[in-house]
Amino acid sequence: MIIVFKKDATKNEINDLIKRVKKLGLKAMVSRGEERTIVGVIGPEDIVRLHPLDVLPGVDKVMPVLAPYKLVSREFKKENSIIKIREGIEIGSEKIAIIAGPCSIESESQIDEIAGKIKEGGAGILRGGAFKPRSSPYTFQGLGEEGLKMLKAVSDKFNIPTATEVMDTRDVDLVAKYTDILQIGARNMQNFNLLKEVGQTKKPIILKRGLSATIKELLMSAEYILSEGNFNVILCERGIRTFEEFTRNTLDLSAVPSIKMLSHLPVIVDPSHACGKWGLVAPLSKAAVACGTDGLLLEVHSNPKEALSDGSQQLLPENFNNLVGELRSVAKAVGRQI
Amino acid sequence: MIIVFKKDATKNEINDLIKRVKKLGLKAMVSRGEERTIVGVIGPEDIVRLHPLDVLPGVDKVMPVLAPYKLVSREFKKENSIIKIREGIEIGSEKIAIIAGPCSIESESQIDEIAGKIKEGGAGILRGGAFKPRSSPYTFQGLGEEGLKMLKAVSDKFNIPTATEVMDTRDVDLVAKYTDILQIGARNMQNFNLLKEVGQTKKPIILKRGLSATIKELLMSAEYILSEGNFNVILCERGIRTFEEFTRNTLDLSAVPSIKMLSHLPVIVDPSHACGKWGLVAPLSKAAVACGTDGLLLEVHSNPKEALSDGSQQLLPENFNNLVGELRSVAKAVGRQI
Amino acid sequence: MIIVFKKDATKNEINDLIKRVKKLGLKAMVSRGEERTIVGVIGPEDIVRLHPLDVLPGVDKVMPVLAPYKLVSREFKKENSIIKIREGIEIGSEKIAIIAGPCSIESESQIDEIAGKIKEGGAGILRGGAFKPRSSPYTFQGLGEEGLKMLKAVSDKFNIPTATEVMDTRDVDLVAKYTDILQIGARNMQNFNLLKEVGQTKKPIILKRGLSATIKELLMSAEYILSEGNFNVILCERGIRTFEEFTRNTLDLSAVPSIKMLSHLPVIVDPSHACGKWGLVAPLSKAAVACGTDGLLLEVHSNPKEALSDGSQQLLPENFNNLVGELRSVAKAVGRQI
Amino acid sequence: MIIVFKKDATKNEINDLIKRVKKLGLKAMVSRGEERTIVGVIGPEDIVRLHPLDVLPGVDKVMPVLAPYKLVSREFKKENSIIKIREGIEIGSEKIAIIAGPCSIESESQIDEIAGKIKEGGAGILRGGAFKPRSSPYTFQGLGEEGLKMLKAVSDKFNIPTATEVMDTRDVDLVAKYTDILQIGARNMQNFNLLKEVGQTKKPIILKRGLSATIKELLMSAEYILSEGNFNVILCERGIRTFEEFTRNTLDLSAVPSIKMLSHLPVIVDPSHACGKWGLVAPLSKAAVACGTDGLLLEVHSNPKEALSDGSQQLLPENFNNLVGELRSVAKAVGRQI
Repeated sequence: MIIVFKKDATKNEINDLIKRVKKLGLKAMVSRGEERTIVGVIGPEDIVRLHPLDVLPGVDKVMPVLAPYKLVSREFKKENSIIKIREGIEIGSEKIAIIAGPCSIESESQIDEIAGKIKEGGAGILRGGAFKPRSSPYTFQGLGEEGLKMLKAVSDKFNIPTATEVMDTRDVDLVAKYTDILQIGARNMQNFNLLKEVGQTKKPIILKRGLSATIKELLMSAEYILSEGNFNVILCERGIRTFEEFTRNTLDLSAVPSIKMLSHLPVIVDPSHACGKWGLVAPLSKAAVACGTDGLLLEVHSNPKEALSDGSQQLLPENFNNLVGELRSVAKAVGRQI
Repeated sequence: MIIVFKKDATKNEINDLIKRVKKLGLKAMVSRGEERTIVGVIGPEDIVRLHPLDVLPGVDKVMPVLAPYKLVSREFKKENSIIKIREGIEIGSEKIAIIAGPCSIESESQIDEIAGKIKEGGAGILRGGAFKPRSSPYTFQGLGEEGLKMLKAVSDKFNIPTATEVMDTRDVDLVAKYTDILQIGARNMQNFNLLKEVGQTKKPIILKRGLSATIKELLMSAEYILSEGNFNVILCERGIRTFEEFTRNTLDLSAVPSIKMLSHLPVIVDPSHACGKWGLVAPLSKAAVACGTDGLLLEVHSNPKEALSDGSQQLLPENFNNLVGELRSVAKAVGRQI
Repeated sequence: MIIVFKKDATKNEINDLIKRVKKLGLKAMVSRGEERTIVGVIGPEDIVRLHPLDVLPGVDKVMPVLAPYKLVSREFKKENSIIKIREGIEIGSEKIAIIAGPCSIESESQIDEIAGKIKEGGAGILRGGAFKPRSSPYTFQGLGEEGLKMLKAVSDKFNIPTATEVMDTRDVDLVAKYTDILQIGARNMQNFNLLKEVGQTKKPIILKRGLSATIKELLMSAEYILSEGNFNVILCERGIRTFEEFTRNTLDLSAVPSIKMLSHLPVIVDPSHACGKWGLVAPLSKAAVACGTDGLLLEVHSNPKEALSDGSQQLLPENFNNLVGELRSVAKAVGRQI
Repeated sequence: MIIVFKKDATKNEINDLIKRVKKLGLKAMVSRGEERTIVGVIGPEDIVRLHPLDVLPGVDKVMPVLAPYKLVSREFKKENSIIKIREGIEIGSEKIAIIAGPCSIESESQIDEIAGKIKEGGAGILRGGAFKPRSSPYTFQGLGEEGLKMLKAVSDKFNIPTATEVMDTRDVDLVAKYTDILQIGARNMQNFNLLKEVGQTKKPIILKRGLSATIKELLMSAEYILSEGNFNVILCERGIRTFEEFTRNTLDLSAVPSIKMLSHLPVIVDPSHACGKWGLVAPLSKAAVACGTDGLLLEVHSNPKEALSDGSQQLLPENFNNLVGELRSVAKAVGRQI
């Protein structure tokens, strides 16, 4: 059960309710957002039903936790959420966000060169990994804090916001210091401690769908972040695991309109990881725009042949430029812009 | 075909295999690496498929190198195939085909009404099922030949070609008499006798991807039809089975550009069956057009609530009309037309 | 809705009910089993609710078709069904059936040699394919009727019943003439016309689970056969399709106790096809026995290296003999015998 | 590593690749077949993984030949590894380990009562969760350190070693202080930082297979732990995600003999989580023993109806006792003991 307070609820009103909840033998989880305070009540819902809480002063609404996710649901908030990244840059509005960059940060010159090219090519946000989740311990694991510093330097030089992955609860503060957007990778979608940790920052979070996560589970994981008070969550479809072998994963584009039905949060698509073949990135990007994505995560590398990771799915800057041009036409055809 | 030996394979084991390969009239290229020996077998792989080598002592694994399909492959024919349906109506050209109609033919008035509306709305081909593969023996199984006659009457009246499913080798001639296009349903994608039977007609065939078929297997099933002499095959992506529960199946739109890479055959998309929710049909149709589909199979029903099958995924004629309008814009944006 | 008549219901009572059902505008599907007559009523269930049928003379019970399968359900019949194959040979009793033989019948001497060996080794039923569903049109498709004749000859010589696959509605009578048990392969699990056709014979049917079929769908397909009056159905788990790549399919042994909960029909396991590696056949066979299977389908070949299909998963006769010995111990440990 | 060229690859393209391979210090073996050219690359595959070759012009596909894991492989160590837990208690030997206890530690009296009963019933190791990965933030998250203290107290009282999950890199030292075995849950199988962290302890680690992890990926994750110097790893099959809906997950028992082929590490099975229904736990446990498991993880609760998590899959102590008795017979039948 979720108790949502009115915007102007007083501290006293909130504390009164928490006391009452505890007296009933239930646990209260308070999350103070920028706009309002929300209290999650944990324990048998029957008890609460016998002791109505929505009549208490300051309370806006009481929502049963029958549907498993609450704060992320379209019921909870009718309008689309728009996540502000920086002045003039947001995700979830009419304008579709292009987030581009290499899979891994490899050197200052590499990230500098790519940043310049993708900004010129139309990207609004720079991506690049410093901590890389690799299935083998013997492959390149990312440059760590050195990479984050390179990313920050380039971000300042080109005045472009950045997104990068965080994999460890211990690194959240560190990564947050250097980047605008924290990314939770598919393998960590159900790393609940990490979700809570990023929920305690105010940073925008890109939450990627797990390799075998249902849409409902993705929304539940987002709920972890919102329940800690951070409502700046961007969901990301990046392909699910199936029996198909030609593509690395199966990009589930039906997740885009499905999430739009179920949640107010913006949703973006990462076609590069999903298909693992750069020749499929362009058609799938167009498809994503056509079915309503709020953004695209695109891997771009000046020299994919020499890339330290995922070379086979990275676009060349010139392909990227062409693609953005084509995407503009598709966006226009569905009433959006890039 | 590549044969990888175990680390501890003996010289004798390796020599035995090489002898066997040579006896089959094939060439063997041995390379002794630091860790193990690998033998490349050169020559038609079909011969090796008949004589399994992975059961021989010392062999770790056998890896085929060539695709097992031939006539359907892009290597066999570089240019896109265009399938003629009737004078002026074809699938695979610049113009995207809209194939619309009800899931099942229910009565002459029903199919007559819908045919008129979808033709007006922009459809070039009428679809409707007379033989219905239903998972329960206790649900409506289709009108059979009566339904085919209704379909033919309406086809003549509106001068619109038709597509309908055939489920039984014994019915191929019957169905071919009444319709322009024969459809093989997902459940029959590997009903090889049925594939051979329709391969002996000259009719255009829509071959739907099985619920858990890989793209390679879909192409292999098409190969059955082509190998009988019928090259008029249209492949159809209609959703695959995954763990996701919000949608009925997961529409694999990456199959569209993937098939275009691998084969010269046209490919169409059926978003209605894939998602099972009419609210998702419009965004997924736009996505399909954006990523290169040659056609769409859309379920349209004047009264979905009363439909004898699959009501929840069928569009109303007015929704269909709006959708075709939107699809025209997307098609234009990617250099196609409807 | 299913109407089950009492064992001693008269023809008149049955006909009266059918008339009444038709007068209500509903369709009646009559199936006269050996023990009793069952009528399936097709149409809106509300109508029947307003006109109770369970008060009519001769009617034992009326079961709503809310649960989608009926005749196969454990609710419909509490005791395990035992399917008689021949005098002294049955499937579903305390004794676990061993069904063994080659993937394909290749020649009379081949099937003769294997039949002798597997009978000696403890098999009660001989299997071997004459019609082979192969994903490529260019591979061995089976010997057809010639193969069936060889199977029959060997069956007579060794006095051993046989099982073989039927793939085409047109071949059901032919195959039924030569064999004791008809097998429906995984790819045809939802070939509903074929199910109806074998439902009209009185032969025992082995129905294999489709590659991506749920347990519920397997039971629904069995329902097609039972609803035609043939209650001699043996279900077969043979692996489902997942993302795992080391095994060809994933053998779902939980299907065995699950089916036992839901249905009265016997269930057998085919580990050979599921894993595709003969080294896994022995441990999985023991596991199948331990969790309650009523039988095993095992591929045995005197010379797997020369087999025309699926060589890598076929056991040698001596491995088969050893395995049966080990299975006897496991069977005894769980209160069964072989 | 094998590089397959496209049919129309040019001589220059092929020569370019060969030069590049040689520059990396690797050997290239060229074989020009009738249809296409294939190049075998000999030398450490890791080098090639860092320098993707499939993006080069003319290349059709790149096929790795060697397994990417080393220390966990059967080739690295032929004999089965036996992991010592305490004096006289080990996993991987002839004796099958029974690890039992509640899903969650709920109170001192609860864990005390269950510990006594399962020890009496034949369990050698006590399990119980203090940190619980739950898909909803609003459900019971475990007692944390309080729970660990309860577990330790009971461990001392009954002289029984314990296993409990660790979810956060920051908690590894804490959890290691209180328990004998650290467990990595399915959702954290690819939480690589957590794997490295437990790899730096010397504690035995139970590593559960991820919901959609292949066997290869499970072995790669184990490799992370071994590569940090901790060889005390026990792999655990706990069900994978498929389309089947009757069971919560699909227990992949073929993983047991498959892992035994590929690795020297012991493997245990958790049937409780996999099927989510206690009625299936007994048959699947017997199956696991029959196919070679080195241990079982069984959920036991004195009062499943009141359990704070996963009540429907927990066994009552009396069911547990009966089951252990039955498992002893099956173990004996396959030459093991409990």
